[in-house]
Amino acid sequence: MAEDCIFCRIIRGEIPSDTLHRDDEVIAIRDINPRAPTHALVIPLEHVTYLDTVSPEQETLLGHMLLVGKDVARSEGVLESGYRLSINQGPDSGQLVPHLHMHVLGGRGLGAEG
Amino acid sequence: MAEDCIFCRIIRGEIPSDTLHRDDEVIAIRDINPRAPTHALVIPLEHVTYLDTVSPEQETLLGHMLLVGKDVARSEGVLESGYRLSINQGPDSGQLVPHLHMHVLGGRGLGAEG
Repeated sequence: MAEDCIFCRIIRGEIPSDTLHRDDEVIAIRDINPRAPTHALVIPLEHVTYLDTVSPEQETLLGHMLLVGKDVARSEGVLESGYRLSINQGPDSGQLVPHLHMHVLGGRGLGAEG
Repeated sequence: MAEDCIFCRIIRGEIPSDTLHRDDEVIAIRDINPRAPTHALVIPLEHVTYLDTVSPEQETLLGHMLLVGKDVARSEGVLESGYRLSINQGPDSGQLVPHLHMHVLGGRGLGAEG
């Protein structure tokens, strides 16, 4: 884990969060600056910044992130109305925290940038 | 495979596409209506509409979609400048084709909706 990473600190319980799900591989929390009625983050417990450094052996972890995102969409009541799962990587994408995470957005019509 | 699904028809070779990658599980093609300098789609060969119908045994396939998206970002030269991987599900998301697919967007600063 990275000492000063905000997501690692949330995972360690040093910073409070509104936790929606936690298992051995990932945590799901509400985004503190929601851009939609549903805006959650699915974050691997392991500190990884870029998909480019994820090993092929971790494909299952990445797939698990997507299925947890879907489960969050269901528990938030947006499974039928629709939702977006997105991962931002690098400067052009608007990635703010250098710890891999996936956004779960829903609860309103979403724009075209994803 | 679904008879009339446009992605299944592309996968069967009945409709031409600009193919960037193909393996036993997924195909990656350029989007015909690109919204960014890099806009590709990663599509599982199997016809699945929603993540909600994907079995936990298919987590590896879903993770593979993300890693292929990352590989496309690299081959398109946007790995360092940044890119977004996104999956739209259902009406609010703008999902146009009812066959699971992941967008790879990059090559310019991306908006906030993902």
